[in-house]
Amino acid sequence: MNVDRLKNDRFLRALRREPVDRTPIWLMRQAGRYLPEYRETRRRAGSFLAMAQNPDIACEITLQPLARFDLDAAILFSDILTIPDAMGLGLYFVEGEGPKFRDPVRDAAAIAKLGVPDMERELRYVMDAVRTIRAELDGKVPLIGFSGSPWTLACYMVEGGGSKDFARIKAIALNDPQALHALLSVNTDAVIAYLSAQRAAGAQALQVFDTWGGVLSPAMYREFSLPYLTRIAAELERGAGVERTPLILFGKGNSAHLEALADCGTDAVGVDWLVELGEAARRTGGKVALQGNLDPAALYGSPEAIRREARRALDSYRDGNAGSREGHVFNLGHGMSPDMDPEHVAVLVDEVHRYSAR
Amino acid sequence: MNVDRLKNDRFLRALRREPVDRTPIWLMRQAGRYLPEYRETRRRAGSFLAMAQNPDIACEITLQPLARFDLDAAILFSDILTIPDAMGLGLYFVEGEGPKFRDPVRDAAAIAKLGVPDMERELRYVMDAVRTIRAELDGKVPLIGFSGSPWTLACYMVEGGGSKDFARIKAIALNDPQALHALLSVNTDAVIAYLSAQRAAGAQALQVFDTWGGVLSPAMYREFSLPYLTRIAAELERGAGVERTPLILFGKGNSAHLEALADCGTDAVGVDWLVELGEAARRTGGKVALQGNLDPAALYGSPEAIRREARRALDSYRDGNAGSREGHVFNLGHGMSPDMDPEHVAVLVDEVHRYSAR
Repeated sequence: MNVDRLKNDRFLRALRREPVDRTPIWLMRQAGRYLPEYRETRRRAGSFLAMAQNPDIACEITLQPLARFDLDAAILFSDILTIPDAMGLGLYFVEGEGPKFRDPVRDAAAIAKLGVPDMERELRYVMDAVRTIRAELDGKVPLIGFSGSPWTLACYMVEGGGSKDFARIKAIALNDPQALHALLSVNTDAVIAYLSAQRAAGAQALQVFDTWGGVLSPAMYREFSLPYLTRIAAELERGAGVERTPLILFGKGNSAHLEALADCGTDAVGVDWLVELGEAARRTGGKVALQGNLDPAALYGSPEAIRREARRALDSYRDGNAGSREGHVFNLGHGMSPDMDPEHVAVLVDEVHRYSAR
Repeated sequence: MNVDRLKNDRFLRALRREPVDRTPIWLMRQAGRYLPEYRETRRRAGSFLAMAQNPDIACEITLQPLARFDLDAAILFSDILTIPDAMGLGLYFVEGEGPKFRDPVRDAAAIAKLGVPDMERELRYVMDAVRTIRAELDGKVPLIGFSGSPWTLACYMVEGGGSKDFARIKAIALNDPQALHALLSVNTDAVIAYLSAQRAAGAQALQVFDTWGGVLSPAMYREFSLPYLTRIAAELERGAGVERTPLILFGKGNSAHLEALADCGTDAVGVDWLVELGEAARRTGGKVALQGNLDPAALYGSPEAIRREARRALDSYRDGNAGSREGHVFNLGHGMSPDMDPEHVAVLVDEVHRYSAR
C-alpha cells in the first residue's frame, strides 16, 4: 500500500479533485541550487550525476526543502535524461552548458537499435532512491516520481543536448516522420516501464515533463507529442480509488492544447504561467486537476508582491472552477532558478496555505 | 508620395485586405548570415554595428535577398536596439553573445533621465539608410521600416542584454510598476517618433517587433505590453487609403492575445508558429491582416517538405478566413537562422506564389 500512512494527503486529494483544508503546494526544482545545503552536498558529491546516481544522496537532497518549508509533496531528485542514458547514449554534463549525449541518435538505423532498459538493472539506482526516500519520508508527504516525455527525451537524444531551434529533430519530423515515430514509440514504452517501476518502488504520484512540447506547431504537437502522452495515460497501470497513483502531465507551452490534454486520460495537467489559471480551469471543465502556475520570476519580487501574485493565482483558479478551490495543486509554471531566495519560498508557501484556508 | 511608383504592391494590398494575384511573402531576417554575400559584406565592414550605421552598406544588405529571391517586400537592415543606444545606453556586441548595453537602466532615477532622441540627429543614420534604400529600390517592392516594441526595448535596457528569465525587469514590474511604466512610456514616445521619421524618410510599411511579449503572464502582458502597442497604433499618424502606411504588430508568443491585438487599432498582426493560422484568422475575424507563420525550422526540411508545409499554412489561413486568401502576408513565425540553405528559401518563395495563384 502506497498511501496508508500518509500524514499529509492534501496533494493526492487535490489531484483527485476532492475537498482539502488548504491548497497544496510544491515547487518544480524545489530541491536545487538555490539552497545552500544543496550546494554543500554537491561540493561533497563532486557532480550532479554523482548525486543523482547515489540513492542516499538523492534522498538527502529530495528531503532538504521539506526540512525548511511546509511543502505538501516531495519529488524524487533525479535527472530527466536517465532513460536515454540507460539506452546507451552516454549522458554527461559540461559545466554551464547543461546535459549532453556522447552518442546522439540521428537516423533510422541508430533509432532501430534502441531498446527499453531493464528498470531494476540499468535504472536500479533510481528505484533504490525511490525506496530510500519513501522510507525516510515515513509518510510525511507523498513522493512524486517523474520522467521526461517521449518528445522531450527525443529532443535531447537527437540534438545531443539542449537546443535553441531544435533544427535536427524538426528536420527528421519533416523529412522522415516514420523514423521519429519509431523513436517516440520506444521512448513511450520506456517511459511507461520507468514510471511503473517507480510506482512499484513507492512513488505515490507520477509527473511527465513535456518540457519541449511548446516548441512544436499545433499540427506537429498533435502528431509528435500528444499521442504519446495519451498512450502513457492509457497504458500506465495506476490503481483506483484512494490507492490510485495519479498522473500529472506538465507541459511548457501547452496552453493551446488544454482541451485535448483534459481528454487524454491523465489525472492532472500542469501548466506554465502563459495562460490564466481561471481560463485553464474553464477550458478543462473539471475533467482533470490543474497544477500551476505562478511565473517563477514572481520569486524575485518582494514578499508583498509574492503574496499578491499567489493570491491572484489562487483566485483565478477558483473563479474559473465554479467558485471552488478543489482540484488545484499550487506550483510554479516552471522550475526554480539558482539565484532565488529561500526566504521567498517560505513566504510563498505560507501565503498559499494561509489564503486558501479561509 | 510613398507608393506612387510601386511595381509590386501585393504586400501593401494584402495588408489592406484587398484582393491580390498571389499571396505576398517576405521573411523575417531575410537579409542575414545565411547569405554568403552578407557574410562577405560583413567581413569587409568589420562588425554588425558598422554595417547598420553605414547607410550605403545597410542598403546593400537590405537589397541582397531581393537579388536572389522573388520577395514581395524589403525590410530595412538595422538593429532592434538603435533607440536605447541613441538614448545613451551604449550598445555593443560580444561575438556569440548578442547585444549588450554598457549602461543598463535599473531604477527610477536612471529611467527619469531618459529622453526621446532626435530622429534626424542621433538616429540620422537610420533615416539616411531608409532614404538610400528607397532610391535604390526604385519602386521594385515596398520598404518596411521597423522598431522594437516598448516592452522588448525595456527588456534589453533593464537586463543589459539578452536574458533567459528576465529576472531584473520582472522584479521591477512586481516591486515598482510605476518605474517600469515610466520607462515604457518614454520608449513608446520614442518608438512613435522613430517610426514616424522612418515613414517620412520613405518607409512604406512599419513593423513593431514585440519579441519578448511572450515571456509575460497574461496579466502582465495586459499591463506592460499591450497598452503601449495600442498607443502606438492610436497615435502613429499613417495616412489613409492607398497612401496609408500600414502598421504590423509582430509578437512572439502573442497567440493568447489575438482578439485584443485585432481591436487595438493596428492594420496587421504578425504571429509565430505556435498558433494555427486558420484559428488566428477566425479569432481576429477579418479586423486585421495576418502575417506569418511557418515554423522557421521548416527550412531545414527537404524541398518537398517545405512545399507541403507552405501549402498547409496557406490553406489553414484560407480555411479560417471564410475561404479567401485576402489579408494574408506569408512569413515565418520568427527570424531566419545562419545555418539555413538559400536554395530552400527559393523553394519556399516559389511555392507560396505558385500555390496561392491557383
